[in-house]
Amino acid sequence: MSEDHQTQQTSEFFAVIPAGGVGSRLWPLSRAAAPKFLHDLTGGGRSLLQGTWDRLLPVADADHIVLVTGSSHEDAVTEQLPELQAHRILLESEPKDSAAAIGLAAAVLFVENPDVVIGSFAADHVVVNDKVFIETVQEAIVTAGDNKVVAVGITPTFPATGFGYIKTDSKLDLPGAPHAYKVAEFEEKPDLITASRYVESGEYSWNAGMFVSKASLLLDILSRTQPELHRGLLTIAKTWGTPEQEKVFAEIWPTLPKIAIDYAVAEPAAEQGLMAVVPGDFGWDDVGDFATLSKLTQDNRLTSGEKTTDRDKNDALAVLGDSSKVSSEDSSGIVVSSTDRVISVLGLEDIVIVDTDDALLVTTKDHAQQVKKMVEKLKGTGNSQVL
Amino acid sequence: MSEDHQTQQTSEFFAVIPAGGVGSRLWPLSRAAAPKFLHDLTGGGRSLLQGTWDRLLPVADADHIVLVTGSSHEDAVTEQLPELQAHRILLESEPKDSAAAIGLAAAVLFVENPDVVIGSFAADHVVVNDKVFIETVQEAIVTAGDNKVVAVGITPTFPATGFGYIKTDSKLDLPGAPHAYKVAEFEEKPDLITASRYVESGEYSWNAGMFVSKASLLLDILSRTQPELHRGLLTIAKTWGTPEQEKVFAEIWPTLPKIAIDYAVAEPAAEQGLMAVVPGDFGWDDVGDFATLSKLTQDNRLTSGEKTTDRDKNDALAVLGDSSKVSSEDSSGIVVSSTDRVISVLGLEDIVIVDTDDALLVTTKDHAQQVKKMVEKLKGTGNSQVL
Repeated sequence: MSEDHQTQQTSEFFAVIPAGGVGSRLWPLSRAAAPKFLHDLTGGGRSLLQGTWDRLLPVADADHIVLVTGSSHEDAVTEQLPELQAHRILLESEPKDSAAAIGLAAAVLFVENPDVVIGSFAADHVVVNDKVFIETVQEAIVTAGDNKVVAVGITPTFPATGFGYIKTDSKLDLPGAPHAYKVAEFEEKPDLITASRYVESGEYSWNAGMFVSKASLLLDILSRTQPELHRGLLTIAKTWGTPEQEKVFAEIWPTLPKIAIDYAVAEPAAEQGLMAVVPGDFGWDDVGDFATLSKLTQDNRLTSGEKTTDRDKNDALAVLGDSSKVSSEDSSGIVVSSTDRVISVLGLEDIVIVDTDDALLVTTKDHAQQVKKMVEKLKGTGNSQVL
Repeated sequence: MSEDHQTQQTSEFFAVIPAGGVGSRLWPLSRAAAPKFLHDLTGGGRSLLQGTWDRLLPVADADHIVLVTGSSHEDAVTEQLPELQAHRILLESEPKDSAAAIGLAAAVLFVENPDVVIGSFAADHVVVNDKVFIETVQEAIVTAGDNKVVAVGITPTFPATGFGYIKTDSKLDLPGAPHAYKVAEFEEKPDLITASRYVESGEYSWNAGMFVSKASLLLDILSRTQPELHRGLLTIAKTWGTPEQEKVFAEIWPTLPKIAIDYAVAEPAAEQGLMAVVPGDFGWDDVGDFATLSKLTQDNRLTSGEKTTDRDKNDALAVLGDSSKVSSEDSSGIVVSSTDRVISVLGLEDIVIVDTDDALLVTTKDHAQQVKKMVEKLKGTGNSQVL
């Protein structure tokens, strides 16, 4: 094991960024043509995708970051990431869920180098402390060298009911990975009482869907749990970069099964004792809805050292966008503005206002989760062009 | 008196429409460059100004309607009212309140014909029953012939605290004006208890600022209460339509005192026993704020025979504008839209959303009166271009 670990230390690491998912709870900001990952949701001047890129550079240079995204996002993605290598973009003709997306990257990189270690990091998450994040990822890379699928876990800061949890087992005691644990099992999104119990016990991490593994191990598990998917991905990968690529991809990709990597790889790996977790306390959120976005924006404002103005004293209306265009009185919540219109808010608590060029949403933080349902209903109407 | 009355029956009547006032409680729909009277606030396809014009035609043909408005509105007004005669538009270089506006029309028409009777009707009010309105105005014209300044009063339908009241005295018993009363006195906007007492007593009408009078009587009263204003208006009127007009107007108008016609004419007339009122129950509102507009729009929808849809059953969100662009759930209040943007409202009670090309207001019906204060505050900011 020690020898294996030393080998691993020098093996090639690739960061894979699956950039998919519309994020319809963030409509009308996020939408099919301009999904969540393309937006600056932290007000820092970089989109979530760009933030993910920036964050990964200490462990993966520009030639070691692979992006998997929908064909329709190619232009936007290359515009936002000018350093991204053309041959490191894997385009999906249609979405096939995370097992196919990450599996494709794993297969292509495996064919290039059978010893490669990959880590997958969603394009649309927010991390507060990049330094702790990278330290955690580095431990995960070391742990992956011990032939484990390694989840980068999040130390829970509150009893969240919107995330899945990972129950830790004993420590692995790996050199260079002092915080690596075996995984006992994965838990689905819990109710509040269960979540509170999890957090109190100290034995659980949030599952952020960030997995680090040798490509070979990941493909090995896939070959057993999803043989059809495994076969298809390998067939595509072998033609990658050849004149056959386009034809073979067009033939096979549409036939692949849709399944999340959690079910196709992580949970089966845990059952076989192949799953590890390195929990990190780096401040993380998947920015799932406007209530979360409101909280994040508020926190950013409070920690960014901005001077509090009279307005801040009177109310707590967070603004994502040009705050000089927003005036408010006796109001709290969030205004997300991607237009140059003047916005006035008067006498509303926990309001959510999302102002875009062709669509406006007005709701409350309490209704943040129901935005998705509303978007579903819009599909059947004459206004579906804004979805 | 009977002879006087018979003379009056044949005397010339002019309707004067003062079209002024920004209506900043209706911002951002109503604003300096596009005040309230230019907007269709009833959803009937005609602006309030056009509605006022249409309503007056049974008592005053196109050559007998005079419009007094700001110079900056000349183009908009002539576009909305193509039948309005060019020589019947009196343009104010700056606003001088209602005594000067109506007094100017009175003076110009008096010079043209000393026997003329005029009635003033604000350009930005809503009347539900035009037939009853006209019957009331006709009685007021008859009463004016008896040398009275006559208020067209409104029979109160609820204890409004936003309007002034007129206390009626005994009946005048004039042939052709069975509902004409002497005015006992004018009352300022009352508190709710006082308003309730007024309504209960049956002795009060709302003061809608609609006054009918011989031009000569109105000017006579002005000469005593506001001699400077009277002198200025007469001097302007004598040069009206001559090469001197422009120069004299530019010299005198800016020097005229600003005072409401209620204080300059109506209240003094009441004290001298020269004031009458003809109350009418024609359904009236001055559409002062978005709470009122919401109620009006709701009422219109309920009485227009529109089929109720599932949405109407679930909530009571009124839409002024293209309702096919608005979707809502668990919401009530009003959406006013003058853009073609899609608007979604989720989980908000008594909400007010006003969506225009360059400004958006989100507030509640309870805060409708405070919009004006908010607009005042915007004046000092970098966003005053939208006022």
